[in-house]
Amino acid sequence: MRDDDLDERDAVRARSEDLAARAREADRFIARYALRLPPGADVDRVAEEIAIEQTVEVPADCIPEAVKADGVPGRVETIDARQDGGFEVAISYRADLAGGSLAGLLNLVYGNVSLVPGIRLVGLDLAPGQLAGLPGPGFGIDGLRRLLGVRDRPITATAIKPLGQPTAILAGLAGAYARGGIDIVKDDHGLHDQRMHPFAERVEACHEAIEEANRQTGGRCLYVPMVAGAPEAVEVQVAYAARLGVRAVMTAPLLTGFETVPRLARRHGMVVLAHPSFAGTFLHDPDHGMTPALLLGTFFRLAGADISIFPNSGGRFAFGRADCVAIAEALRAPLGRIAAALPAPAGGMSLERIGEMVDAFGADTVLLIGGALIRHDPDREVAARAFRAALDAALRERSGSA
Amino acid sequence: MRDDDLDERDAVRARSEDLAARAREADRFIARYALRLPPGADVDRVAEEIAIEQTVEVPADCIPEAVKADGVPGRVETIDARQDGGFEVAISYRADLAGGSLAGLLNLVYGNVSLVPGIRLVGLDLAPGQLAGLPGPGFGIDGLRRLLGVRDRPITATAIKPLGQPTAILAGLAGAYARGGIDIVKDDHGLHDQRMHPFAERVEACHEAIEEANRQTGGRCLYVPMVAGAPEAVEVQVAYAARLGVRAVMTAPLLTGFETVPRLARRHGMVVLAHPSFAGTFLHDPDHGMTPALLLGTFFRLAGADISIFPNSGGRFAFGRADCVAIAEALRAPLGRIAAALPAPAGGMSLERIGEMVDAFGADTVLLIGGALIRHDPDREVAARAFRAALDAALRERSGSA
Repeated sequence: MRDDDLDERDAVRARSEDLAARAREADRFIARYALRLPPGADVDRVAEEIAIEQTVEVPADCIPEAVKADGVPGRVETIDARQDGGFEVAISYRADLAGGSLAGLLNLVYGNVSLVPGIRLVGLDLAPGQLAGLPGPGFGIDGLRRLLGVRDRPITATAIKPLGQPTAILAGLAGAYARGGIDIVKDDHGLHDQRMHPFAERVEACHEAIEEANRQTGGRCLYVPMVAGAPEAVEVQVAYAARLGVRAVMTAPLLTGFETVPRLARRHGMVVLAHPSFAGTFLHDPDHGMTPALLLGTFFRLAGADISIFPNSGGRFAFGRADCVAIAEALRAPLGRIAAALPAPAGGMSLERIGEMVDAFGADTVLLIGGALIRHDPDREVAARAFRAALDAALRERSGSA
Repeated sequence: MRDDDLDERDAVRARSEDLAARAREADRFIARYALRLPPGADVDRVAEEIAIEQTVEVPADCIPEAVKADGVPGRVETIDARQDGGFEVAISYRADLAGGSLAGLLNLVYGNVSLVPGIRLVGLDLAPGQLAGLPGPGFGIDGLRRLLGVRDRPITATAIKPLGQPTAILAGLAGAYARGGIDIVKDDHGLHDQRMHPFAERVEACHEAIEEANRQTGGRCLYVPMVAGAPEAVEVQVAYAARLGVRAVMTAPLLTGFETVPRLARRHGMVVLAHPSFAGTFLHDPDHGMTPALLLGTFFRLAGADISIFPNSGGRFAFGRADCVAIAEALRAPLGRIAAALPAPAGGMSLERIGEMVDAFGADTVLLIGGALIRHDPDREVAARAFRAALDAALRERSGSA
């Protein structure tokens, strides 16, 4: 990187910090959008339209003076050219318009403009007071490490799969993984409450199998059932799991609502895993939607995820390395009183890639390996031991070379 | 259209019906995907990968024989070349894997593949038994017409806006619209439960203003508060509105969860309006996401929307005419025991376009005009009368010319 670039980056950063500080003083916060405009479009006008669309939603000449004076319409703060030929626009909003819920915040920063192509949400500088109403992780990294009894090293995780097998077999797999030393054993996200896989029966059997394994090994393997369905069903599922003594649940925020399961989980003192199912359309278009770091990092964390699962680069999905590292940073970076959460890179990972994943994501990471474990050895306990051994070897290698 | 094309369309349709019938016999249903593949990609392999990703989610050689024999993995039924150079793939899934909730169905047909670019969900042939667990509209077109006392003609609607004004002013606007003869007066979707606009205060005042107007006019104008926020808050809001006697609520399914508000509304006998906020990333890419007809038509209707609001062509958003008509068709087409719902084209509509909207969408439509009413006349009652007069004129013109 040239010195010029560094100077420019510093200047941009200083300006950005100044902007955020001014917004906070006025009880406003900043959302940054990357715009890709059609030829001939007027960037000032488009920026102004976003500011209005996301707030007062009337023609500019129909906004009452008092509403303007109160700062209710979004305010275009800066417009900069981007190196990719587009623009970056910073718009400030009154923080109280979001109303203290994640749904309100998402509506304010990306509700209606999600329907307008060429607008991507790329940054958010929240006002400290705004974080008060948002749940955030109930455990966070420290709480989860205490629960698991795992210090310092990356946490191992796998999934109970494939679906379609009798409950006794699924529970058998769960127990074998736990005996083999995996820290977290979660349901595959396609398991919820189906005729083939009734929630109550499956969760009781898998929980029992893992508890039995824990009694044998003295370990603290955590079982994570998938919770999904209609809202009343979700409530019943979480309460049922809590009664059994299950300490964690998994949810897909885009399917069940961002805060639905996390709020229930917090009531019962349970860890929350967030799954990216149905979230992909926000992420695949470099000119629309939002950055993976915002959705699967910041927003999932604010919603209450202790662990956010995402498709790692080099797997079955199309995320790049930089995106994945940015998700991890968004989960772990300081964010007011909101606890830090753990990234769980997944989606076609293998034992051979453990060292590389440790290098990329560091110790505060959940290494989630599913299908590759099955392929490694049909005996799941043996496969689990191999996972743990591969991790230990990678860590030894790294501490030796340090 | 040439005869060849018609023949081809008939042949495709006959084949599609045959496929759906075969799937139903086996308690399966069909999802159709349009694929846009990178050069050199093998369409058979990609189709097979989707079928596996959405169900068993393990490498193909790790699927147990019994799971295959039970038809648990998705099954590629047909692959056809599309005229646009891509492919259309029909995959059948066991209906019971969706588990009787909309979240389960969406997860099964578009959960993980949302994360893979170039895959668009373009069709769905549900099995009749599958509809049993899904709520659908509580009122539907007939029920809503009875509630409003509006027969045959399109229904008029507007929004209370802009936000940022004191409650008394918002309530005054609501009352004026109702006195002017608008059928449905809804909150702007940015109004929910903020410091500036506390839900209880606003909803009571607006409801009272509209009831007072109804007493004066003998009309039955329906007030629709926006419900949003964390799940417990939403529950409190709906219950509070119901206690006041409010008969309708609005929700943004992508923000609050597809079924959260509709299930609460049904419990209280309330009409549901669905708003497309935060839904746009599913719709903007012709090679990814899903058709607007599926998301804002079929899925919003299945979730329980009596009215689905969408950005009409020619307004502030980028939907085409054909997409909008297809949404309306998906809301109103026969769908087992699920009631028909009303399309509400919106987003920058004006009085001048009423005739054209009537032509495009027919009588079973909600004409939602917001900002343009404000611009038409600062006196909202006068503006409302003008809206009704413009509609009546358009209808007279059309019945005269029939």
